[in-house]
Amino acid sequence: MNSKQIRIGIAGYGNLGRGVEAAIAKNPDMALVGVFTRRAPELVKTLSAQTPVHAIADLPDYRDVIDVLILCGGSKDDLPHQGPEMAAMFNIVDSFDTHARIPEYFAAVDAPAQANRKTALIAIGWDPGMFSINRLYGEALLPDGATYTFWGKGLSQGHSDAIRRVPGVKAGVQYTLPSLEAIEQVRSGARPELTTRQKHTRECFVVLSEGADAAAVEQAIVTMPNYFADYDTTVHFISEETLREEHNSMPHGGFVIRSGNTSEANAQVIEYSLQLDSNPEFTSSVLVAYARAAYRLSEQGQFGAKTAFDVAPGLLSIKSPAQLREELL
Amino acid sequence: MNSKQIRIGIAGYGNLGRGVEAAIAKNPDMALVGVFTRRAPELVKTLSAQTPVHAIADLPDYRDVIDVLILCGGSKDDLPHQGPEMAAMFNIVDSFDTHARIPEYFAAVDAPAQANRKTALIAIGWDPGMFSINRLYGEALLPDGATYTFWGKGLSQGHSDAIRRVPGVKAGVQYTLPSLEAIEQVRSGARPELTTRQKHTRECFVVLSEGADAAAVEQAIVTMPNYFADYDTTVHFISEETLREEHNSMPHGGFVIRSGNTSEANAQVIEYSLQLDSNPEFTSSVLVAYARAAYRLSEQGQFGAKTAFDVAPGLLSIKSPAQLREELL
Repeated sequence: MNSKQIRIGIAGYGNLGRGVEAAIAKNPDMALVGVFTRRAPELVKTLSAQTPVHAIADLPDYRDVIDVLILCGGSKDDLPHQGPEMAAMFNIVDSFDTHARIPEYFAAVDAPAQANRKTALIAIGWDPGMFSINRLYGEALLPDGATYTFWGKGLSQGHSDAIRRVPGVKAGVQYTLPSLEAIEQVRSGARPELTTRQKHTRECFVVLSEGADAAAVEQAIVTMPNYFADYDTTVHFISEETLREEHNSMPHGGFVIRSGNTSEANAQVIEYSLQLDSNPEFTSSVLVAYARAAYRLSEQGQFGAKTAFDVAPGLLSIKSPAQLREELL
Repeated sequence: MNSKQIRIGIAGYGNLGRGVEAAIAKNPDMALVGVFTRRAPELVKTLSAQTPVHAIADLPDYRDVIDVLILCGGSKDDLPHQGPEMAAMFNIVDSFDTHARIPEYFAAVDAPAQANRKTALIAIGWDPGMFSINRLYGEALLPDGATYTFWGKGLSQGHSDAIRRVPGVKAGVQYTLPSLEAIEQVRSGARPELTTRQKHTRECFVVLSEGADAAAVEQAIVTMPNYFADYDTTVHFISEETLREEHNSMPHGGFVIRSGNTSEANAQVIEYSLQLDSNPEFTSSVLVAYARAAYRLSEQGQFGAKTAFDVAPGLLSIKSPAQLREELL
């Protein structure tokens, strides 16, 4: 470990934690102190055999050797207690993504972070995160306008879980698809009013349990309230083998489009889009860039909870401000 | 004028100054103190008859009533002296866009701004500006990758000037077009090496002087070094009437695409694009949003020269941090 490197800890080792481990290896100004897990450390297989694995209960002992702890747990069960707890001991970055509960989570993390002079970047990733920033930029740069967010093509974990709960379904995945027609309308500057059904469609790939009635399963899926009833949903029945071979990755992405007018005559369109082979690996890569910002903010004495809205772009880069002005401006 | 509004002055009243006047009207937390011009004030016709027009020489008298002065002069002749001069008296925002001279201009503005406790946001707009931010975000989020900037379709002022200097040319305009084929290659994640000729083409619409030789004019244009020789250039000859009717707007735009890998298996593509009916009006709208940030930074005591890299997204929005977290995150 280079003495000038930012020392990172990873709390939780699922898809996101693995992605963070991979991303740290691509950032030469960072070093990985170790993975901290609730499982028995000796049972965790990391990407690199060199990565130390410790029990999460031992984290307090690492207060002096971790500059930023990246929380890789889930927003439902892990972060609501882990975020506030860890922000009392470490500078943290997390990907809390329950949009509706962000204000309450922000407050819960802010108090211990402020009290202990720690910097906590919450709700980092791409949505919330990069998409949020682009919604903000769009609104600020074109105040007379409308913002549209489209997601996909992408695997939705929540909707995949929902179809797997339908009786007769053995396994399955769900993809959210943006309507290309709706996107073209938005890009034209027309500022259309779009219903839920007009913006996205849903596509399910389902493996039936033995003896299950395909028509009944399909009906149960497409009429499921909250998840599918408001969308045009297509259900494909496939074999377990096809599921394993063709649906084993986690692609995602989407579009944030702001369409507005600077005068009656002139329409302007801003578009930001992501096309991701791996949703968790991209989210992890964003978390690691923001860990650099968390470290710098804490060095500047900027403590408390913050979001992507509070982080100047330059804080994310490995390059110095002068180098950035010379090379990228 | 509302006592809580940010009070803006406009220095210089060409396309950019007019755009700033229009943009201020769309931002209810801002008020326009007036336009400051080198021309005789009574000869300047503003968009709104209510806008006061003053001589630029009188600006020092307005030190206490202007919160942020937006400099709307050109990067070649006006800003190099105006920027440092005005940054000694006002918080400023400008659109200095000579990329190669930004470090030197930054230093020239930073010294008087620091000495007089003023905030100076330089090189604001879309390139430099929003495109620069997206080049930075791309590199920071996907360190193992390549960044591509494409411009157009857009009217290029510099290239239009160049064709108008060719003997036999009475009038004309030039459009830069991005190669859609190159863009598709980049979007595929292939990280191609692209030559200048492969990235953009140039299209000229020319009105000939009476008796001029079309073939000779075309040859002079397409072989012109620096401007056209390295590109595939098409020249169309049109009438003065067609030029006036079909080529009187200033569209522009472009794409910043970052393509990178988070692991060997997974490629990720980030794309930011602008499609602008009016290049100057959009630039003006960006300047006005950054004027809000300049005001807030100066209130926080953050003095000196800064660029878009130093401005957290939240500072651009009329909304409060809590409102932003609730509505846009």
